[in-house]
Amino acid sequence: MQTQGVTHTSIWHDADKKITSIIDQTELPHSFTIVELKTFDDFVTAINEMWVRGAPLIGITAAFAMARAMAEDPSECNERNAAARLIATRPTAINLQWAVDKVRQHIHKVPAEKKASTATQCALALRQQDIFVCEAIGQHGLKLLHELQPHKISNGETLNILTHCNAGWLATVDWGTALAPIYKAHNAGLKVHVWVDETRPRNQGASLTAWELEQHGVPHTIITDNTGGHLMQKGMVDLCLVGSDRTAANGDVCNKIGTYLKALAAHDNQIPFYAALPSSTIDWDIADGVGSIPIEERDSREITHMSGLDKHGNTVEIQLTGTSSAANYAFDVTPARLVSGLITEHGLISADTYGLNQLKQLLKVP
Amino acid sequence: MQTQGVTHTSIWHDADKKITSIIDQTELPHSFTIVELKTFDDFVTAINEMWVRGAPLIGITAAFAMARAMAEDPSECNERNAAARLIATRPTAINLQWAVDKVRQHIHKVPAEKKASTATQCALALRQQDIFVCEAIGQHGLKLLHELQPHKISNGETLNILTHCNAGWLATVDWGTALAPIYKAHNAGLKVHVWVDETRPRNQGASLTAWELEQHGVPHTIITDNTGGHLMQKGMVDLCLVGSDRTAANGDVCNKIGTYLKALAAHDNQIPFYAALPSSTIDWDIADGVGSIPIEERDSREITHMSGLDKHGNTVEIQLTGTSSAANYAFDVTPARLVSGLITEHGLISADTYGLNQLKQLLKVP
Repeated sequence: MQTQGVTHTSIWHDADKKITSIIDQTELPHSFTIVELKTFDDFVTAINEMWVRGAPLIGITAAFAMARAMAEDPSECNERNAAARLIATRPTAINLQWAVDKVRQHIHKVPAEKKASTATQCALALRQQDIFVCEAIGQHGLKLLHELQPHKISNGETLNILTHCNAGWLATVDWGTALAPIYKAHNAGLKVHVWVDETRPRNQGASLTAWELEQHGVPHTIITDNTGGHLMQKGMVDLCLVGSDRTAANGDVCNKIGTYLKALAAHDNQIPFYAALPSSTIDWDIADGVGSIPIEERDSREITHMSGLDKHGNTVEIQLTGTSSAANYAFDVTPARLVSGLITEHGLISADTYGLNQLKQLLKVP
Repeated sequence: MQTQGVTHTSIWHDADKKITSIIDQTELPHSFTIVELKTFDDFVTAINEMWVRGAPLIGITAAFAMARAMAEDPSECNERNAAARLIATRPTAINLQWAVDKVRQHIHKVPAEKKASTATQCALALRQQDIFVCEAIGQHGLKLLHELQPHKISNGETLNILTHCNAGWLATVDWGTALAPIYKAHNAGLKVHVWVDETRPRNQGASLTAWELEQHGVPHTIITDNTGGHLMQKGMVDLCLVGSDRTAANGDVCNKIGTYLKALAAHDNQIPFYAALPSSTIDWDIADGVGSIPIEERDSREITHMSGLDKHGNTVEIQLTGTSSAANYAFDVTPARLVSGLITEHGLISADTYGLNQLKQLLKVP
C-alpha cells in the first residue's frame, strides 16, 4: 500500500544481506522507523514488544525467525527451543503456531547445513502467499460491498464502515484483512468512509489504522471505542468489518478486546457484521470459541500509562491513573450468532459449523 | 465520603466569605486541588472546563452560579443572560436547566437587593437535598443488592459490580448515584469489588471513580471500555450499575458514551443492568430518549490528546494521533428495553412508561 507516496509492505527480506526488515509499529503514527532484525533474539523482541503485531504478520515474522534460528544453530535442540520461545510470545494468535509448524515441516528432513536456506525459502513463500491471500480477501469483500449496498454504490453515496483495532496491511504483509476490501473499494473509485475505533489500551486503531488510511488517502474518522453503538443507532454505519486472531470451527471469532461489544451493537441495529480472515487463523481443533480460546492477559501498564508526543515533538510516557490497579485482557470472543459471515481468501462463508465444514473440505484439512 | 482520611463533599459554600468552593476534578487523581469560585465567570469556566462534571453536581454548581450572578448584578436582564450562558455550557445534562429554573422561580418576586441572598439560600437547599436524594438512592440500591444476590451475600462472597464513567460523590455533592449503593454496601460490611471502565475520552472512570473508591477503601480494578463484554461472558460481573444524565419518560437512559454497549452485553449475558438517578434527571417532556435527546459533541482534542504525569511528576499533555481527525460524541442513549430498572430516591421503578408514570404521579409533575 501507499506510504508517503511509496509502495510498502510490513516485512521484507534482503537475500544478499540475509537480513529481514520490519517497521517498528510502536513508533507509528509519529515516526516511520525501519528496523533490521539481525539475531533470533531481535525477532523475539520484535514480537514480544509488538514492533510487529497482527496475527498474519506475527506468523510471517515467526517464519523468518525460525530461519534466523537455523542460521545461528541448525541443531534439533535449537529448533525446538526457538519454536517454543516464539510460540510463548503471544498465546492467542494461532498463525504463530501455524507458521512455525510450516517451517519445521519443511526443514524436517533437510541436512543441517541446508536448514537455514530452506527455512528462508519457506518464509519467503509464506510471505508471498499472505499477500495473495489478503488480496483475495479484498476482492471477495469488494464483491460483498456491492451485494450489500447496491443502491448506495450506484448513487455514488458514501459507504460508512466501522472497524476495530488494526487489520490493515500493517497487520499482514500487504492489503490487510478487514481493510483489504476497503482498499479495493477505494482503489475502484467507490466512496468509502471508515469509522476507526481507537482500540484501547494500545490504540492500534488511532495509531495504525488511521495512519494507514491517511497514507493511502482513504477518508476516515477516529472515534473512541465507546462510540460505535451510538453511531449504529443513528444510522451512521452501513457495515462493520473486523479481523480475527483466531476463528473457532463453529464460527466464533476471537479478535481484539471490544470486538464483541461492536458485534452486539451491529446485531441490535440490524447492521451487517463481517470478519475478514485468512483460513490460517481458523483453529479446527476448537469447536467452541467462547468457551475454549485462551485469552492473553497483558501488562496493566498498557492501561495505566500511555505514550505520545509532547509539545516539543519528543516521545513521552505519561501516567494516567493513580494508585489503583488495572486488568488488561487483550482479546474477546464474538459468538458466531452475531457474525453475518466470514470473508476468507476462498470467498464468503457462513459463520457456523456448516460454513466452516465446507471450507475444511475444500482445504482438505484432516 | 472519605478522602485522605477526611470527610469531603464536592461543593460547599462559606456563608461568611460568600465564596463557593469546588474540587478541580481535572487534576484528579494526581492532585487534590480546591478552587474558590469568586466571579460568575469562574462558575462558567468551572462547568465549561469540566472542573465540575456529573449531572447533579453541574446542577448545584449552576444554582450557586445564579446566586453569584445576582450578587454581581440583580437586574432581570442579567438574570436572563446568566441563565442562558449557564444552560449553553452543557446541552445534555437536564439538571442544569432544572437547577437554574428552580433558582429563578425562587427569586422571581423577590426585590433586587434580596435576589442574591435568596438565590444562595435556594442553592444551599438544593445542595442539601442532593445529599439526601443520593443517600436514599444508596439505601434503595443496597436493598436491591440483597434481593439480587442473597446467596452470595449470605455466603460472604464478593459481589462484582461493573460501572461506567463516574457517578460517584464527585458527580453529585456526596454519596453519588451509581456508587451510592456500593458505598452503602461497603460501609455495611458486604464484600464488593468494582470493575471500573476507564471511560474514554476523558477517563472519568480511571481518574475519578477509581480515585474515589481507592480513597474510601472499596476494592476495584480499572479496565478499558472494551473489556466489560468479555468479563460478563466469563461470569465475572454480577451487576452493572450506571448513572444517567437525562432519563426519558419511556425509561430510555442517556449517559456517558459507551453505556449502551455495556447494556447490550449485560442483556446478552442475562446480567442485571440498573441505572441509579435522582428524579431531577428525568425529562418528562421527552417521550422517546433514543430519538429525541440531543447528544453533545465535544472538542476532538479530547480524543487526539491526553494529559498525565511524566516521570518527573509534572503534568504533561501528549498527542496520541497523527494527522487524522476525530469525532467526539459525549453521550449515548440506552433503550429502556435493556435496563432492568431505575433506582431513584423514591425507590426502584421499572424502566418503562408505566414505572415513570407512577413516579410522575408521586412527584405531582403537571
